[in-house]
Amino acid sequence: MSSHPTSSERPFASVAILGLGAMGGSLARALSALEERPRVVGWSPLGAERDAAANAGALDDAPAEWRDAVSGADLVVVAAPLAASCELIEGLADATPAETTLSDVASLKVPVARAAAEAGVQDRWVGSHPMTGSEESGFSASRPDLYQGARVWTVAHGSAQDRAERVGGFWRSVGARPAAIDPADHDRLMALASHLPQLVSNALAGVLSRYDVAPDQLGPGGVDMTRLAASSAGMWRDIFEHASPELVRGLDELAESVRRIADTLRKGDLETIERLMDETKRWSHGT
Amino acid sequence: MSSHPTSSERPFASVAILGLGAMGGSLARALSALEERPRVVGWSPLGAERDAAANAGALDDAPAEWRDAVSGADLVVVAAPLAASCELIEGLADATPAETTLSDVASLKVPVARAAAEAGVQDRWVGSHPMTGSEESGFSASRPDLYQGARVWTVAHGSAQDRAERVGGFWRSVGARPAAIDPADHDRLMALASHLPQLVSNALAGVLSRYDVAPDQLGPGGVDMTRLAASSAGMWRDIFEHASPELVRGLDELAESVRRIADTLRKGDLETIERLMDETKRWSHGT
Repeated sequence: MSSHPTSSERPFASVAILGLGAMGGSLARALSALEERPRVVGWSPLGAERDAAANAGALDDAPAEWRDAVSGADLVVVAAPLAASCELIEGLADATPAETTLSDVASLKVPVARAAAEAGVQDRWVGSHPMTGSEESGFSASRPDLYQGARVWTVAHGSAQDRAERVGGFWRSVGARPAAIDPADHDRLMALASHLPQLVSNALAGVLSRYDVAPDQLGPGGVDMTRLAASSAGMWRDIFEHASPELVRGLDELAESVRRIADTLRKGDLETIERLMDETKRWSHGT
Repeated sequence: MSSHPTSSERPFASVAILGLGAMGGSLARALSALEERPRVVGWSPLGAERDAAANAGALDDAPAEWRDAVSGADLVVVAAPLAASCELIEGLADATPAETTLSDVASLKVPVARAAAEAGVQDRWVGSHPMTGSEESGFSASRPDLYQGARVWTVAHGSAQDRAERVGGFWRSVGARPAAIDPADHDRLMALASHLPQLVSNALAGVLSRYDVAPDQLGPGGVDMTRLAASSAGMWRDIFEHASPELVRGLDELAESVRRIADTLRKGDLETIERLMDETKRWSHGT
């Protein structure tokens, strides 16, 4: 057995990160803390974010133009909101050579896959979705251990499979747990596992706010249930625009379920409430 | 100014804790870790829990009968589910002398206040509700820092006010932040700040379970939103039996709000979604 890495395991020697917010900034900080670190070049449309990332020692270079940032990169990771990610992937088609692997960290994969196909880079694009983040935004919300232990879904079209293994190795190098998935399956799963909890948190915070319950009157459970309500609307807007129809279905079912719980309590039918709680407890414990 | 503590600040020299689960067990562990510690006697109906607490060094004594545990105590803290707490407060009326201060940690205060009044101990009962806990139960879910920084609501009838200050000092000694409240105001607040988030978490977990989304497919946001779904139904049953009508009203409003969000998404009206998110973000930041 050879101890030399195969081509699909060979680490990327030079990485460009477009976007230096919580996701991109954390990635730059994680990479620059590695013992065998790649060259890390970062770009943000905001000069203050480029300066902050450079001053934090997270970048080898921080040019003002994204085209300069990606020149010479083996891997470009787009870490921008969804619509901007699609535009950048399209722009990267011409701005980078065929050897350069393209990735992104947007929370939906079908729209980015479509952008990659339209730009003719589906064979060198490996979409990523790290299931981690922050309800705060900007480089100040970044942290070097953001990816530690996080699931990262990766999607790759036919001939990009070989690059997908290398991108998987890239995520493992920052402590994440990559797993391949189909883009449409991914987006359906996210509608339920991520977008639905987000909007339920907003709805709950809205009700508490109307009843004049303040955040500091909540216990740890209420705090957990409303943490996502602090998320930035701007980032979510494009996600909801492209969300899977499962999201609306999930919201309808949740509304119906909460309405039924209210009726059940009105009738004093505590057996039914107890049964619901027992069922969800079993679900929580994976049994 | 005297440096001697006034009678209302004088710490309790001997504390009995009835119930050694997450709440009572954590209290015993916190007290026994204090530099100037009271004598701590604990009781649980389960011998294994008494042994576990004693073996953890959390108790000076762990008799098999609760009447033996409370004999000689300056303060008795009942740390049991709501219905059992009411029964124990009634039993303590005869089992303890008038000097003994009685408290409990149940999450609703009106039912316990009623039990204390019926048993004629309203002048020596100071109800407590620490807004902390665990979705797990039993002594194994206890931890010595559970009360650190936690809000503890205290309720006291007219002439029990003086004891309330001493009970407040008791909670401060384990790192908690006591604050006085009227029992009915407390129960209304909890319906919204605690019971509503609990049932919303159950409802969300129920929907995810029906769509075959597993807990390990969730990101950190989804994990937070379903953590409470692992709570024990048994403990909540009596709470829901005595919950304030605000809970049913809050559930109705939440169902309506989620239904409206679904309709808004169906219409593609992203401005309205963005406005809701902006509003709840402002609420989260207290502005």
